[in-house]
Amino acid sequence: MIDLLAGLPAVDHHCHGVVKDAVDAESFRSLATESDLPQPADAFDTPVGVAIRAECAPLLGLPRHVDGESCLRARAELGPQEVTRRLLAAANISTYLVDTGYGGDEITTPGQLAGFTGAEAFEIVRLESLAERLARSGVDASGFAETFRSELESALRTAVGVKSIMAYRYGLDFVPERPSEAEVRSAVGGWLRSGEARLTDPVVLRAVLWAAVDAGRPIQFHVGFGDSDIDLHRCDPTRMTGFLRATAGSGTPIMLLHNYPFVREAGYLAHVYPHVYLDTGLAAGFAGASATAIVRQSLEIAPFTKVLFSTDAFGLPELYVLGARQHRLALARVFGDWLTVDAIGETDARRYLELLMSENARRVYGLGKSSPPEDDQAV
Amino acid sequence: MIDLLAGLPAVDHHCHGVVKDAVDAESFRSLATESDLPQPADAFDTPVGVAIRAECAPLLGLPRHVDGESCLRARAELGPQEVTRRLLAAANISTYLVDTGYGGDEITTPGQLAGFTGAEAFEIVRLESLAERLARSGVDASGFAETFRSELESALRTAVGVKSIMAYRYGLDFVPERPSEAEVRSAVGGWLRSGEARLTDPVVLRAVLWAAVDAGRPIQFHVGFGDSDIDLHRCDPTRMTGFLRATAGSGTPIMLLHNYPFVREAGYLAHVYPHVYLDTGLAAGFAGASATAIVRQSLEIAPFTKVLFSTDAFGLPELYVLGARQHRLALARVFGDWLTVDAIGETDARRYLELLMSENARRVYGLGKSSPPEDDQAV
Amino acid sequence: MIDLLAGLPAVDHHCHGVVKDAVDAESFRSLATESDLPQPADAFDTPVGVAIRAECAPLLGLPRHVDGESCLRARAELGPQEVTRRLLAAANISTYLVDTGYGGDEITTPGQLAGFTGAEAFEIVRLESLAERLARSGVDASGFAETFRSELESALRTAVGVKSIMAYRYGLDFVPERPSEAEVRSAVGGWLRSGEARLTDPVVLRAVLWAAVDAGRPIQFHVGFGDSDIDLHRCDPTRMTGFLRATAGSGTPIMLLHNYPFVREAGYLAHVYPHVYLDTGLAAGFAGASATAIVRQSLEIAPFTKVLFSTDAFGLPELYVLGARQHRLALARVFGDWLTVDAIGETDARRYLELLMSENARRVYGLGKSSPPEDDQAV
Repeated sequence: MIDLLAGLPAVDHHCHGVVKDAVDAESFRSLATESDLPQPADAFDTPVGVAIRAECAPLLGLPRHVDGESCLRARAELGPQEVTRRLLAAANISTYLVDTGYGGDEITTPGQLAGFTGAEAFEIVRLESLAERLARSGVDASGFAETFRSELESALRTAVGVKSIMAYRYGLDFVPERPSEAEVRSAVGGWLRSGEARLTDPVVLRAVLWAAVDAGRPIQFHVGFGDSDIDLHRCDPTRMTGFLRATAGSGTPIMLLHNYPFVREAGYLAHVYPHVYLDTGLAAGFAGASATAIVRQSLEIAPFTKVLFSTDAFGLPELYVLGARQHRLALARVFGDWLTVDAIGETDARRYLELLMSENARRVYGLGKSSPPEDDQAV
Repeated sequence: MIDLLAGLPAVDHHCHGVVKDAVDAESFRSLATESDLPQPADAFDTPVGVAIRAECAPLLGLPRHVDGESCLRARAELGPQEVTRRLLAAANISTYLVDTGYGGDEITTPGQLAGFTGAEAFEIVRLESLAERLARSGVDASGFAETFRSELESALRTAVGVKSIMAYRYGLDFVPERPSEAEVRSAVGGWLRSGEARLTDPVVLRAVLWAAVDAGRPIQFHVGFGDSDIDLHRCDPTRMTGFLRATAGSGTPIMLLHNYPFVREAGYLAHVYPHVYLDTGLAAGFAGASATAIVRQSLEIAPFTKVLFSTDAFGLPELYVLGARQHRLALARVFGDWLTVDAIGETDARRYLELLMSENARRVYGLGKSSPPEDDQAV
Repeated sequence: MIDLLAGLPAVDHHCHGVVKDAVDAESFRSLATESDLPQPADAFDTPVGVAIRAECAPLLGLPRHVDGESCLRARAELGPQEVTRRLLAAANISTYLVDTGYGGDEITTPGQLAGFTGAEAFEIVRLESLAERLARSGVDASGFAETFRSELESALRTAVGVKSIMAYRYGLDFVPERPSEAEVRSAVGGWLRSGEARLTDPVVLRAVLWAAVDAGRPIQFHVGFGDSDIDLHRCDPTRMTGFLRATAGSGTPIMLLHNYPFVREAGYLAHVYPHVYLDTGLAAGFAGASATAIVRQSLEIAPFTKVLFSTDAFGLPELYVLGARQHRLALARVFGDWLTVDAIGETDARRYLELLMSENARRVYGLGKSSPPEDDQAV
């Protein structure tokens, strides 16, 4: 089962770029946690740190379970290009959908990321980053909505979907209705006058979200587990049931990302709402050897056609390997258990595993069966 | 262990009727999901669909894991009577408690359902349906409360419990106190004047609920997982803690149904409140091969005397088979694991399994040890 | 693995005293449940009751799985001293941190508890109890804050941490900011004038909590599972994210206790916030044979340096044995599973198990490597 899965190419439908240059010990530890605060815990003494030392060390020529300092030394000796090349090759990801809205010039573009392994990459446009760029560019309140639509449309000529971080900027308990043009104008005016670079106004957040609904391409939502910027209980995806009800007939797919610890809630939404999909990225990667329990819950009641794979990896190539490897291991165990008790047939198992690893993403994002690697496009 | 369980008769303390006539492909797919919206996912490519093809196909003379179309063809050839007879026989349910408040003439009465296998059946009265029938019958605001009590009392001469869908009509975060007579009169007046057939007024909902508390028979609450009519986060059963506190001394049992994904929350309530019971119906059925994880959580902290079995099956006889079979398999695995590590004795295990499959329900609903099948009574 | 764990001494970082005198059947049953309400369920027919009959009966000279009445008879024959001595010896707890704010003269002091087995014990000061003692002592509104600080400081000369039952008295959704001196004076005045012995005023609750933040010693929070005094959904630890954000730089450790069913939420907080730690006490004890599933979740994303062990045992020595034994069994299974699939190295496994059973607590509470048993000090 794990052999079958190891051979299946993966579409990572939500990730970021890797850091281009050498990463020092402090940065490595900081990138190996989802926390944005200084941590007393050594990142190598966490589930993900243990997994890095178990799974990634051998790819750097070290024994399994070696100490963290040895990993850092081996990385420094091999150099960032070689480390990234080796690790990404082991991840066996054929297609990356890259959220380009976080991280600056220090991380790879989608094209550069794909280039390490001859994979393909497509961009995901972060709605809030696009809005903030417009605000910086001097758009005025009366022109914002129209300019945003036009810029989004332009970006979606090459990008294959959008990302919302409503969870970080407000919470998923936002007012579900589309704001009126007058409300948007007034809210944008307030935001622009405030001089605040960061978009947190709930009306403007809703305006850019509804523009994305109109655009019709998949909308990724950060759900649950994240850094200290979120209030986790306001990131339960069932808090946005009203929005899902309002958009159920729109045809625009809603992609619930991560979902930890709300995996069952996300599965429920995918079961009931025709346009809702989910994954267990991020959490499965950070949970190391415990990823199976998380992935298992995502397959309890959601249709097999509506669960996807992602790593949500950022910065460290280790996170792509782990995200992909833990996910494959988890699927191998879940389907292996089912096959053992004859709860599923072999043909179905193989077909669903292909859907889960790549085909669901290809279908929902309209990727086609095989595409050449693309370079990223300016938004 | 599974042999022991397969032989234990089951009291399904919450289910509905089956569709009487032949079911076409579209209806079958619609009945095989809890969703009330058009789904792009084929119902045969879901956990419950896989389970239907694995467990029910052989009962129709087909190989395990056959495709869905073959199942539909076999059903059509055998005809609805024979399909229902075969499947219900395999479910080995000796007693059905049937919520008659949902579905019309196209589904079986409790007596008809029981008649397929010589089982017994008792009615569960849906509070909101009874209230809506009174509203249609021309009762006025000043007479509503008294008429409702009298009709409920009359229905409970044969019915063995009531059902509340407060979760669907308002949420479980309702005001816990009993409304005053004046409040009820005023709220009923508003409802009747609105011409709205559907009861959603929270005061009237609370009034009929408190009438049921006074009646003293078990009150079933829909909890958690349901269709797009609910806001899941408002269906956490701990949201009605105030109501449970207010009724703890009443002697009226509160039966928490389904509870997905709030199984642990429901177990906590059953642990702390003397009158609270729970099951994992519906979710366990729809989760197919994953049902064990759900049932397992229901047995973490709740007393073994307070967990029940139900299928919540509606429409398709497949859902009774699956609900019953997955539940028995889950209990076999959980207790089998405990016996393997000698965490429980064999005598206790057998005694608790009997409680869980039937005796808890018999005791709480006052069913007696063996009763003849009854036909349903007009409410 | 279980042999290794059985030999590791444990620091129980949150427990209470045992009842000194003989316990009659009714009291035993009442102490063997977290419920504070009269229960129709026999406590011996619950997960914890089954575990008592399985694991504790042999320590009283009875066969495993014997009936509850036999356990009660054997207890009566051996007498409370001998029963407690035998059971606590089997628990292999080397250090008890004892919350002295609940239970009166009928339970042991920390020193008496430790004396049964030559263990060491330290006191944990319950904030609300200290505040209520001050209120009874005649302190006035203007002197309360200063007197509380001074009394707390004095208590912390021997006590090693404090305990907050904000979850019981208000909920974890309290206003995160430190109240002003004027607000505190006014709120204390209102409380004192009310004549209410019990502290439930949210401003005073926050005032004593912030005094504890200033004191800099670990603050234990009751989280989740408790008796009918709590509203469980208001005891989700992520409800106090604002408070955690406000205290992240304070250096004061926040210890999330129990966390059932919010184990994953607590693990998320420990992952993100530098000063947050968690355990799965209480629930793991009451869950009997199901404890592993609960402990397992606590190790999904939290650093191994931030998860602790506690029993939260109160009254019955059986609860210390079970809490410790189930926890060791759970860790043995989780780490055993990881070792089996080579997800962790043996050296790391052994090191983390020592952290989890004792060293994390020793470090956070500043206990030192080995201390002589202390007697409790008057607060």
